[in-house]
This record gives sequence, C-alpha cells and structure tokens, in this order.
Amino acid sequence: MIADASEIRALLFDTFGTVVDWRAGVAREVATLFAALGIPCEAETFADAWRTRYQPAMEPIRQGTRAFVPLDVIHRENLDYVLASWPGGEEVDSEMRDRLALAWHRLDPWPDSVEGLTTLKKDYLIAPLSNGNVSLLTNMAKRAGLPWDCILGAEVVRAYKPQPSVYIDTAALLGLQPRQCVMVAAHNNDLAAAHNTGMRTAFVYRRTEHGPGQTTDLHPERAWDFIVEDLVELAELLRRP
Amino acid sequence: MIADASEIRALLFDTFGTVVDWRAGVAREVATLFAALGIPCEAETFADAWRTRYQPAMEPIRQGTRAFVPLDVIHRENLDYVLASWPGGEEVDSEMRDRLALAWHRLDPWPDSVEGLTTLKKDYLIAPLSNGNVSLLTNMAKRAGLPWDCILGAEVVRAYKPQPSVYIDTAALLGLQPRQCVMVAAHNNDLAAAHNTGMRTAFVYRRTEHGPGQTTDLHPERAWDFIVEDLVELAELLRRP
Repeated sequence: MIADASEIRALLFDTFGTVVDWRAGVAREVATLFAALGIPCEAETFADAWRTRYQPAMEPIRQGTRAFVPLDVIHRENLDYVLASWPGGEEVDSEMRDRLALAWHRLDPWPDSVEGLTTLKKDYLIAPLSNGNVSLLTNMAKRAGLPWDCILGAEVVRAYKPQPSVYIDTAALLGLQPRQCVMVAAHNNDLAAAHNTGMRTAFVYRRTEHGPGQTTDLHPERAWDFIVEDLVELAELLRRP
Repeated sequence: MIADASEIRALLFDTFGTVVDWRAGVAREVATLFAALGIPCEAETFADAWRTRYQPAMEPIRQGTRAFVPLDVIHRENLDYVLASWPGGEEVDSEMRDRLALAWHRLDPWPDSVEGLTTLKKDYLIAPLSNGNVSLLTNMAKRAGLPWDCILGAEVVRAYKPQPSVYIDTAALLGLQPRQCVMVAAHNNDLAAAHNTGMRTAFVYRRTEHGPGQTTDLHPERAWDFIVEDLVELAELLRRP
C-alpha cells in the first residue's frame, strides 16, 4: 500500500469482470434466446467464445488501421462471428442479434459492487474507465444501480485500453493528474498500463470472472498500491478519517 | 404539449441558469475574494460582466478559427479580460485567478432542481447537455447533489451549443434518436437549436437568472413541447403511469 493516499481524488474502474459479472449476464440472455428458438446451447461456452473475440477485435483500432467505433459495434460484429460457426446460429435473425448484442448493457454487478461504490463515492469521484461505450455504461449503471459521478471510457477519449492516452486523457478530463487517480481492475495488464501513466493501482480479486476454471488474473502480478478481495474492502482501506 | 410522450427516453439539461444559479454563485466567490483583498466590488455586476464574455468567446471555436478548448479555459481567459479594466483587478494574482475561474464548478442549484431531477431520473435517463466541461459538470453535480446518470456536453462532442452537432452527437452517444430526447432549458435559442435537430423541447421559466432586471428569456418564444415553472412541474408532467 502506498504511504500517502491523501492526494487521491478519483477512483476509475474497469467494469467488465471488475464491477459486473459479464459471463453470467451474457449467458443468461444467450440461454433465453436459444431456449425460445428450441435449440440446445451451452450458454456459458457461448459467452466465453464471444468474449474471446473482444481483445483481438479492438486491435486494428489500437494500431490505427481502423477508425474508432464504439464497443456496441464490435460486440455486434463479434456476435456474427461466433454465430457463423455455432450450431443453430443461422436461426438467429438480424433483429435477435441486434437485441442480443446489447446484452452487455444488462449485466449484474458483483454482490459487493454497489455497496463498495456507494461508500467510495462519499470521499472520492468515482467513474468507470472502461472500453464500453457511453450508452452501454450508462444503461448498465441505471439498471444495476451503480452510482457513478460521471461516465468515462474509451468512447469519450476515442481510444481503447490499454493505450496510454486512454488513462492520460481521462485524468485530464477530470482536471486531475494521473497520480491523483486510482485505476481499479481485476486485470493485471490494465493496471500495468495505468501504472505506466502515473496512476495509482488497485487490484481486485475476481477469481470466477471466467468461470470455475479460470486460469488468468488469479493473483496480483506486481505490488499494486492496493490489493483487495472486493470493493467493500477497498472502500474500508480508503475511507477518509 | 406533444400528444405522445411515450417515446421519450432521455432528458438533457442546459445547466447554467436552467439547473444552477450561476449569477449568485459566481458573485459569492467574487465578493469573498475582493473582501479578502480589502477592495470594494459590486460582485453581481462583476458576475454579469464575466458572463457577458461567455458567448462571444466561444464564437471562434464554433466558426472553426480556433481549436476546441474546454470552458474552464474560456472562463479563465474571460476573467483576465474583466479584471483588466476592473477597479483593483491588478491586485488579483495568478493563483487567485486560477481558483476564481473554477467558481463555475461551485454553483448552487435552483431550489427545485434536485427534487425535480431525482423524480425524473426514475423514469428517464437524465444528463446535462451543457457547454461546461466534464470536470466542471462533474464537480458541480457532486457538490450540489445533482443525480445525473451521466455527464455529457460540449467537451465530450468537441463543439459548443447551439451548433447542431452538439445535440445530434449527444443523442447518438446515448444510442437514441433526437426525437427520443427532450432538451430542457431556460433559453429560447438553445431550444430552437435542439428543435431543429428533431429533439423535443421543454422551456423552464428562470425569471431572475440575470437578476431582478432581467430582460431576456422571460417568456417562451415558440410553442415548445413543454412549458413549466420549474423542474418539479416538469417531473409531474412527465411522470410515467
């Protein structure tokens, strides 16, 4: 833990996996859709396949070979990709795909998220710093009761994490230096990128983000400033006297 | 009033004058500063002079002869302009100016604003659509208790009202068509620009925004979709059954 937390003003959160449970939420909507069609489907496996396309699909935008598009567009494209080789996928029509692509707007928070964020909001500015687009994060927050002070992220700064500009430009939008911000994430690579820009870092254990067989991000890989079991513990650590 | 409000999803608010009382808030900080310096100052007159520079200072950005800068920068420049010819202005040093320029982050809401917004938030997405920058609007909301779902406005879309792109791009960020949005303002020109993009419109009477001798925006100049005394009345009109 850092010696002096007094200069911290804002806490910025990764959302998918850190604040909300994307796998269960997506699987729930996938299961409902396939059940309505009368087609058997392993919904968690579908969710994993969809999520696997997430990082590679953003890569051309990071590398500048594709113009920025919001994550909703990428999710919709990746859904087509998964359905193309999924048993019965051809039965899912365009309208169903449009609706299912927005399942990422309707994810449930982890059990500690709302309580932790509500407490942290008393002493700090709290905002998502997610690759999700503005409408996704806004709709998610409204449905899940996430009490953000504002909605930030990739679409506002027109770039995808872990590009350094995402962290730097977000701090600037808040009128803050990176060192006045804590990046909160369940993912070591996100924290590494934030740390490189001068942000503080908080690692949250989310051992079942990818299901019971998760193999990644089971441990903090560096001495992050804060390492916590959940957001309630983070709020206790950071409570102002 | 429009016949069918069922397609409305979001309410977007002008802030300065519509949600918060900029004149009293700015005058309060001006008065405190000049009192500390022992210099007499008509603080409301100062606030008016500062605000008078607001629209003309954005004009080069609207016309494309100046790159976009956030409103905090414009406020700071305009403060220098006013102080240059203000009695005792030379006594206000750079650090004092930096702090006073952020007085616009610390404005109080009109008495009905928090109650009205809190009720509206139950049925609609609510957000500022202001020329204020993200940190200004976020800090203002946190201090004043404005329960926005997200913070939108000029800085996010890199243009100043009443340029059409501000309204169109903001609706798009929310995944909405302009007709699904209501622009709420105490200013006829803001509503006219929003209406031209297809947004719904709501006029709020703020008869003392510019003080007791106000001469502008005393009445709705067109048949706006909603015309209300305050935000509580707007919330009553729009309450979903």
